[in-house]
Amino acid sequence: MIKYAIPKKVKKEKTHINYSNRGMVFEEAINNTNEYYRNIDKALIHKKPTPIHIVKIDNSNNPARICDAYFEQPSTTDYNGIYKGHYIDFEAKETRNKTSFPLRNINEHQVKHLLKVQEMGGISFVLMRFTLHDEIYLVDSSLVGKYYYSDKTKSIPYQVIKSKGHKVPYGYLAEIDYLKVVDQVYLNE
Amino acid sequence: MIKYAIPKKVKKEKTHINYSNRGMVFEEAINNTNEYYRNIDKALIHKKPTPIHIVKIDNSNNPARICDAYFEQPSTTDYNGIYKGHYIDFEAKETRNKTSFPLRNINEHQVKHLLKVQEMGGISFVLMRFTLHDEIYLVDSSLVGKYYYSDKTKSIPYQVIKSKGHKVPYGYLAEIDYLKVVDQVYLNE
Repeated sequence: MIKYAIPKKVKKEKTHINYSNRGMVFEEAINNTNEYYRNIDKALIHKKPTPIHIVKIDNSNNPARICDAYFEQPSTTDYNGIYKGHYIDFEAKETRNKTSFPLRNINEHQVKHLLKVQEMGGISFVLMRFTLHDEIYLVDSSLVGKYYYSDKTKSIPYQVIKSKGHKVPYGYLAEIDYLKVVDQVYLNE
Repeated sequence: MIKYAIPKKVKKEKTHINYSNRGMVFEEAINNTNEYYRNIDKALIHKKPTPIHIVKIDNSNNPARICDAYFEQPSTTDYNGIYKGHYIDFEAKETRNKTSFPLRNINEHQVKHLLKVQEMGGISFVLMRFTLHDEIYLVDSSLVGKYYYSDKTKSIPYQVIKSKGHKVPYGYLAEIDYLKVVDQVYLNE
């Protein structure tokens, strides 16, 4: 049986977050939102662990330590789970570009995965954050797929996202309240 | 942008597998089954990466190498995805015990997660393999939860699994054809 190291508990202070110019904050805000959704039994959505290829484990320690490994390219998206009986699957990305959203850092496996989810009857999208506009949009996978495969620059213009995407409101407990948008866009509620 | 190391492609030979006495083969067989299900567009189910806490990254290499990390306790199950529009979530475990299935190596987070999936309208279970009987059973989360919380020894007797669980057939292309059982047990097909 594997022994796990017990991570130190970090007490989280709930403070008003200035979202600009802070790396990782977007991911953290989504994780907090999902945790809130879980706590109120609204949805069961988790971030998947980062895929890693382990090369060498040092067993002389207890618990064992990984002493050599590298990052693998993810074949699926970062987030999935269940909401109101529906399978939900999405990726989250941000850009400092003001005029378009580059799709370069979404790999083709992920785009195919998002499109396949929709074929299978699930709900899938990309949450796109424009850091400098401080705006987040839910962009349906079909639009992502369209630009991924047909646009030479592999990017979606900001104006297209503004008109065809769906702005996600910031909230207090649900910091990035994307399920409110899912209700409107996919569930007609 | 993160650079990924390209893993060497290993050519897989399809041979008849003797499942006895071979560690990791169970997990591999489930992964192969899921890959087959994906290839024929039957279901979109993936194994989640193992959760790892990264302590130190060596950036002097390109791509970067992880030079210190440890295993974290998973808070969800290993497998999830979508099948016929339904959210599917399960854990897979095996034992060399002949008379009962010990639940010790399923952690409480995972049991709670499985039960929560069902409350949310999803399908969840544990695939249990008795290595020495060479039998695999699909055991519904409610039965797992019952024994996890009420049985002193935290284990389910083999006879109970034989009568209340559902035997999963071995197949050729779908090596562990658990969706056949899902059809019968959850979808009345």
